[in-house]
Parts: sequence; structure tokens; C-alpha cells
Amino acid sequence: MSIAEVTGFVAATLTTLSFYPQAYKIIKTRDTESISLVMYSIINVGLILWFAYGLMVGDKPIIFANAFTLIASLTILFLKIKKKK
Amino acid sequence: MSIAEVTGFVAATLTTLSFYPQAYKIIKTRDTESISLVMYSIINVGLILWFAYGLMVGDKPIIFANAFTLIASLTILFLKIKKKK
Repeated sequence: MSIAEVTGFVAATLTTLSFYPQAYKIIKTRDTESISLVMYSIINVGLILWFAYGLMVGDKPIIFANAFTLIASLTILFLKIKKKK
Repeated sequence: MSIAEVTGFVAATLTTLSFYPQAYKIIKTRDTESISLVMYSIINVGLILWFAYGLMVGDKPIIFANAFTLIASLTILFLKIKKKK
């Protein structure tokens, strides 16, 4: 693997994993006050489109990375909406 | 542009823009309580690596999308750290 490939792989791994600590913090504290509903509405649509893009071009890393991210980001959106009711 | 290209372009635009409503909400409310410091530490390192990857492979969309996202995500991280002091 070239330096560029290693950089891209680590970048993708970090950005994919990063939503999990936020989902964990909300599950633990039940506090979603400062979380932006607009951010998580937009980013989830974007991640679903990335997932669809991955399926269209048959790119497995894009499919799996975005599916994995969606689990956490949809959880955050769901908990934010649930708290707003 | 093919349907796949349009899907990828819209996905990239949405995921790039999505951090701005969160940064705006924090600037307006000064509340960062439910924001995860771990998330924004990890995601900023990931976005910096994506930016570096874009420079290495000479991919302008990756360079500009991640630079634009970093402005908002670094703002969120800075405000979270500032509030913790």
C-alpha cells in the first residue's frame, strides 16, 4: 500500500468510527440538548446517498463504511427526535 | 453526469454542509454539554487525513470538501474545549 492509500484508509476508518462515541454519550446521558437536529437530518440523507452511490458503482469499502456510520448517526437522530417529543 | 455521479455529488455536498448547522447552534446557544469531545477529536483527525489524502492524489473535490468541513468541525471542537475549561 502507498502512503496515500494508508492515509485514505486511516482517514475513512476514523471518520466512520467517530459517530460511535457521540451515540454512546447520548445513550449514557440521555442528553441531546446541544445536538443539532438539522445536522443529523442532513448528514443521514448524505450517508444514505453515499451508501446508494457505493451500491451503484459496486465499491465495497464505501458500502460498508457508510452502512457502519449510519448505524450510529441514525441512532443519534432517533434519540434526538424521541427527546424532542 | 450519470445517476451515480449525481448521487455521489449530492452525498458529498450534504455530508460536507451538515456540520455547519451544528456549529451555528453551538455559537448561538453556547451549549456544548451533549457534544462528544471524543467524536470531534477523532473526526477532525480523520478530516485532516482526508485533506492530506486529497493533496497526495491531487483530487480537488476531496481537498475542498474536507477543507470546508474542517472549518465547521474544528469550530465545534474549539468551542467544546473552551467550554470544558
